[in-house]
Amino acid sequence: MTTTPIARGLEGVVFTESKLTFIDGEKGILTHLGIPIQEWAESSSFEELSYALLHGRLPNAKELDHFDHDLRQHRYVPQELIENIKLYPRRMNPMQALRTAVSHLGMLDPHSEDDTHEGRYRIGVHLIAQFATIIAAIARVKEGKEPVAPRKDLGHAANFLYMLKGHVPTEEEARLFDMALILHADHSMNASTFTAIATISTLSDMYSAITSAVGSLKGPLHGGANEAVMDMLDDIGSLSHVDDYIGGKLERKEKIMGVGHRVYKYFDPRSRVLRDYAALVAEKQGKSNYYQMLERIEGIVLEKLSAKKLYPNVDFYSGVVYSDLGIKKEFFTPIFALARISGWVASVLEYVEHNRLLRPNALYTGPVDQHYVEIEKR
Amino acid sequence: MTTTPIARGLEGVVFTESKLTFIDGEKGILTHLGIPIQEWAESSSFEELSYALLHGRLPNAKELDHFDHDLRQHRYVPQELIENIKLYPRRMNPMQALRTAVSHLGMLDPHSEDDTHEGRYRIGVHLIAQFATIIAAIARVKEGKEPVAPRKDLGHAANFLYMLKGHVPTEEEARLFDMALILHADHSMNASTFTAIATISTLSDMYSAITSAVGSLKGPLHGGANEAVMDMLDDIGSLSHVDDYIGGKLERKEKIMGVGHRVYKYFDPRSRVLRDYAALVAEKQGKSNYYQMLERIEGIVLEKLSAKKLYPNVDFYSGVVYSDLGIKKEFFTPIFALARISGWVASVLEYVEHNRLLRPNALYTGPVDQHYVEIEKR
Repeated sequence: MTTTPIARGLEGVVFTESKLTFIDGEKGILTHLGIPIQEWAESSSFEELSYALLHGRLPNAKELDHFDHDLRQHRYVPQELIENIKLYPRRMNPMQALRTAVSHLGMLDPHSEDDTHEGRYRIGVHLIAQFATIIAAIARVKEGKEPVAPRKDLGHAANFLYMLKGHVPTEEEARLFDMALILHADHSMNASTFTAIATISTLSDMYSAITSAVGSLKGPLHGGANEAVMDMLDDIGSLSHVDDYIGGKLERKEKIMGVGHRVYKYFDPRSRVLRDYAALVAEKQGKSNYYQMLERIEGIVLEKLSAKKLYPNVDFYSGVVYSDLGIKKEFFTPIFALARISGWVASVLEYVEHNRLLRPNALYTGPVDQHYVEIEKR
Repeated sequence: MTTTPIARGLEGVVFTESKLTFIDGEKGILTHLGIPIQEWAESSSFEELSYALLHGRLPNAKELDHFDHDLRQHRYVPQELIENIKLYPRRMNPMQALRTAVSHLGMLDPHSEDDTHEGRYRIGVHLIAQFATIIAAIARVKEGKEPVAPRKDLGHAANFLYMLKGHVPTEEEARLFDMALILHADHSMNASTFTAIATISTLSDMYSAITSAVGSLKGPLHGGANEAVMDMLDDIGSLSHVDDYIGGKLERKEKIMGVGHRVYKYFDPRSRVLRDYAALVAEKQGKSNYYQMLERIEGIVLEKLSAKKLYPNVDFYSGVVYSDLGIKKEFFTPIFALARISGWVASVLEYVEHNRLLRPNALYTGPVDQHYVEIEKR
């Protein structure tokens, strides 16, 4: 018997400080640098938010221009890497491919071991730019198509959609995608950011930290939720089946995909932004089958589950938004990575400035006072 | 001002239970399944210890035979991966190469997403076998040589040295290397094992977990220490310079490589086993320059630092042992991985059985109540 308290999942354990992101899960508040996520989504760009997370403040026009220029310059990855991605098997899991490609990119970077702040920052900024190129290349190869080279004259979001589809998106599409990137850029100490920090805490390199984060985000408890929401919608099939399906889930006390969050005990503010957008699109273009189903499910969920503090989260609506943009379900998680790379880089740089090796304890509950027994005597 | 206690480095935080490994740092005790590390090193094999860590008990003869057969069968990796490793740049960092190759191997495994216990166990056992093949291939390619295919008729340690050097090692060499693998196979909740657990806690796949662990081990605060000891010895140059060099370090209160450990406040029991072996070799073959320097440094350290609970750790002697085996310094950390893979796999399998997503908190210390300001007004 032991009285040592076990902090399962490290829930409630504070292990560091951060100036980046604040979440009040009870009130449904999310801010970056003290500015509510709604304002970022309405007024900013992914490039600007990335700068702000990396520097701890909003850039002035000249700084933003310089940063944006830097990102555009570094969209290119070594041709050697593109050639390698072309060798990946068609049936590849896109997140396994991203994990491999990022790791490979590190091996090709002669400055990968630069452990100065400037060196790590440089790699981080390049990775923010290069993630778009790598993910788009993986998507193209998976479809049996030739990767599309980046264009310097497009913004980050527009250029990604261009590389993904081979044609320049409309301004509206680019803006919507930019907003989705903003909403997913950082979220305090989530599991993938924490895994990146655990990795860098040994003073390993930036590529190792980001490779770890990709592997962590890949898990269905973290990055895979919006894919699961779309699976659920496909499973339900049509609006008329929603009530039976969700009713059955509630009766069997099963989890409803995209509902509830470890942190939020109220509306996830990101889900509000996405819902409002989806509603706008629905008004303009007519309600899609998916949108109608989500609307109905949200109605039931708010009625039946809000007393239990279970509300739709960001994954509830993001899948439908990506789907509207013509992005395939299996690329939802890589796109999550495309956004979260900024939070990963910013969090890793912040942590390693006052680094401390992460080494928690496990409570030993195994046998004691044993001795090796010769194999004949077992 | 805040009163929230911050568990920096998660030091002292217990987040899970484990039946694998027990360490008493004050007394210098390390056991696996309750059996002291000295007994494992003297009587067991890396294969047997791997089985024991995975199954929680010693195997009988038939079980060990079956497990060993399994490992031998799975030494082979897809030729596609070997061809890819051959494309790696000659100047590659071996740990970046290992990280990339393991991730790539996962992408090639059609069963990588099998999340049953059996599925994860199978991948884990294969990885224990395949790490040897991958690391040896990386070493060969880095030297501009053709990788050597594994041989089924050799034990794990002997086969690795065979693939590394292209000729079968002596029995004594194989036994020594086997012992070094045993000593490094597991060490409770170290940083790389913890990073692997953080990754699997999102229910990601085994390859993601192990890729993360490789990236974490790569850091100089974790896996790079024995390389640093050899650097120090090369730096000192000869026995006659030891006193001045170490004396200067002590005067300037600088860290002496291979001395002191986050956990051990007494002799690291692994360092005792390695020292005894090194002494044996020195007696038979004459004292090497390296060995004589280490002996002298240990003398000074014990005299001057033991009051501060700083003792030589496992890395203090392991570099010299590897060096004796003709292994290059830059492959010391990959060889650490070759051993620790068993601990990683066993710890990940143990954790995920009662999985809980790892999501600690960061204390927010950034600005509050801010608003987005138009760029012209900044």
